[in-house]
Amino acid sequence: MPRLEPGWALLRVRLAGICNTDLEILRGYSHFRGTPGHEFVGEVVDMRGRRRQADRAGSVGRRVVGEINITCASRGRAPCRFCRCGLPRHCLSRRVLGIVGQDGTFAEYLALPLANLHAVPAGVTDAQAVFTEPLAAACEILEQVRIQDHREAAVLGDGKLAQLISRVLRAAGLRVVLFGKHRTKLALARRAGMRTVRVVSEQRKRRAGARQYSLVVEATGSPSGFPRARELTAPRGTLVLKSTFHGTARVETWPIVVDELTLVGSRCGPFPRALELLRSGQVDPRPLIARVFPLAEAPRAMRFAQRPGVLKVLLNPEV
Amino acid sequence: MPRLEPGWALLRVRLAGICNTDLEILRGYSHFRGTPGHEFVGEVVDMRGRRRQADRAGSVGRRVVGEINITCASRGRAPCRFCRCGLPRHCLSRRVLGIVGQDGTFAEYLALPLANLHAVPAGVTDAQAVFTEPLAAACEILEQVRIQDHREAAVLGDGKLAQLISRVLRAAGLRVVLFGKHRTKLALARRAGMRTVRVVSEQRKRRAGARQYSLVVEATGSPSGFPRARELTAPRGTLVLKSTFHGTARVETWPIVVDELTLVGSRCGPFPRALELLRSGQVDPRPLIARVFPLAEAPRAMRFAQRPGVLKVLLNPEV
Repeated sequence: MPRLEPGWALLRVRLAGICNTDLEILRGYSHFRGTPGHEFVGEVVDMRGRRRQADRAGSVGRRVVGEINITCASRGRAPCRFCRCGLPRHCLSRRVLGIVGQDGTFAEYLALPLANLHAVPAGVTDAQAVFTEPLAAACEILEQVRIQDHREAAVLGDGKLAQLISRVLRAAGLRVVLFGKHRTKLALARRAGMRTVRVVSEQRKRRAGARQYSLVVEATGSPSGFPRARELTAPRGTLVLKSTFHGTARVETWPIVVDELTLVGSRCGPFPRALELLRSGQVDPRPLIARVFPLAEAPRAMRFAQRPGVLKVLLNPEV
Repeated sequence: MPRLEPGWALLRVRLAGICNTDLEILRGYSHFRGTPGHEFVGEVVDMRGRRRQADRAGSVGRRVVGEINITCASRGRAPCRFCRCGLPRHCLSRRVLGIVGQDGTFAEYLALPLANLHAVPAGVTDAQAVFTEPLAAACEILEQVRIQDHREAAVLGDGKLAQLISRVLRAAGLRVVLFGKHRTKLALARRAGMRTVRVVSEQRKRRAGARQYSLVVEATGSPSGFPRARELTAPRGTLVLKSTFHGTARVETWPIVVDELTLVGSRCGPFPRALELLRSGQVDPRPLIARVFPLAEAPRAMRFAQRPGVLKVLLNPEV
C-alpha cells in the first residue's frame, strides 16, 4: 500500500491499460524498475489534501483519471525553471507514473498528487475513461499544430495510438489517411471513417503518397517509421513524431533541410480535452479493446498485447 | 558561353562566393557534375525576355543577384504541384544553380531565368551583394519561426552561415549566443555584438547552456552538430536545422518526442529581405571576407577555403 505525502491521493485502480511504452520498458526503455503502467481509471479511497486541491479532484469515492507527470512542486520542492514557466509536464525532476521513478497502474492501488487528478464525467464508462491518457496524448497534436492550415493528414501506423490520433484529427475536421500493415486494424479505422492504405512492401509503400501530405503523424512505434513518414511529407510540411522506443534511428537530416520540413515531437497532452471528446461521444475508443485480463494474469496479458493484430489490452484488478 | 532560352538572361559574374555546400559537393553531396558555385553578383549582358520579366530584372548593364532554384515554369514546362501552390523553391523538377543540373557561378558567364534576378540597390557594393544568397538563407529563419516568441537564440557554429544567421537574428531584436570552436571567428562575432561560448571539449560543451534556449540554430555544417544543438534546446523549444552535408547522422528521435521539440529544416530564403538588410546597413558581411582569389586560381581558393579559421573566400573573374 503506497504511503501518502501531503497533497496526494490514494486511488483504487478500476481498470488499467497496456500501452506500447509498457512493452518498450520491458525492452529497456527509460531503465525503469518498479510497477509499470500509466493508463488507468480509478477511484479516490484516501487523500492527504490541501482543501483547494481536494475540491478539484473531488471527494473520496470519486471516479478519476490522472496525469502521469509528477512535478517537483507535488513532491514538496521549490518549482524548477520549467514548472515556473508553465511547463509542468517538462518538470526537470519529474517522476512519471510507471515510467520514471514512480510505481504505476498495474496494481490494485496507486498514489498520485491531487493536482494530477481529473474527475470522470458521469456519462463516460470505465472502459472509455481508461483511454483518457493516450487520447490526451493524441490531443496534444491539436495544441502544437495549427490544424486549420491543413485539410488532410496522413497517420503512419495502425496501432493503438495511431487509431486514437486518427480519430482525434478526424473529430477536428481533417480527412485522415491511415497507413498500416494489418488488415483487421485498417478495417477498424475504416469503420471509424478513415481512408486506409495497406503498406505491403517497402517498395510500394515508398511510392504510395510520396510527398503528398502537408501534415503527417508518425505513430508506428518503430525506428523504421521515421524515414517512411518523412517520405510522405510535402515540402514545407509538418511531421509530428509520436513514437518513443528504446534505441536510435539512423536519420538523414539533409532532406529535412532541403524540403524545409517542420518536425514536432509530441508526448503527453491535455486531459480536459480528451475527457470532453469522450463525454461528447466525438471519439469512442471502445472498439479498440481486444481483451480484458484479471490483474493477476498481467504477465499473460503483456504477452497477449504483443501479438500482431491485437490493439488495447486492459487489466482489471477487481476480478 | 551558355545558350539562352526565352525568359533567361546572360550574366557576367563580377564576384562569386565559396559556400560550404560547394566543399560538400566535392565530397559527393548532391552528386553534382558541372561548374559549381551558387553565390554571385553579376551584371546582365544579354537577355531573351518577355517584357514584364525584363522590367523586373532591369535592362542590360544592370547589376543583379540571382535566386538559385530554377523552376519548371522557367524551363518552359507546365508548373508542377509545388510551383502551383506557391512553393517555387521546392519545384519538383527544379534545377539548382551549381548544385543540381545547372552550371554555376565559378565562371565568367552564367545563365539564369529573368524571374530569378533581383537588382542590387545602388548603395550596396559588390563585396556586400555577393553575400545576398547566404544572407537570404539566414533570413529564411525569420519566415519560419515566430521570432517574437523568443528573446534569445543560441547559434551553433562559427562559420560563414552561422555568422550571417547570428547577425540576422540580432538585427531582428534577439540576444544571440554563438557557440564555436575558433577563437578568431568568435572574436569576429563578438565585434558584431554577439555573446560567444568557446566549445572546448565535448564534455564541457554538453554542460554549457544545456536545455537553456527556446530557439537554437544548428549551422555547424557537420553531422555532430545535431546532438549538440538538441542538448541546448529547452523543452518545447525550436531547433532550426541549417546544415546540409553528405551522409547520415545517427539521431535519437525519442528525446525530440519526450522534450516535445520542434525541428525546422531551413534552406533558401527571400532575396528582397536580404538586400534590404544590406542596403540599410543593418547587416554588413564584409568583415567575413578572408580573401579574394582570381577565378583562374579557383582550385587553390577552394583549398584555402577549407583551412581552419577561414571564413568567406571570393572568386573574381575580372582580374
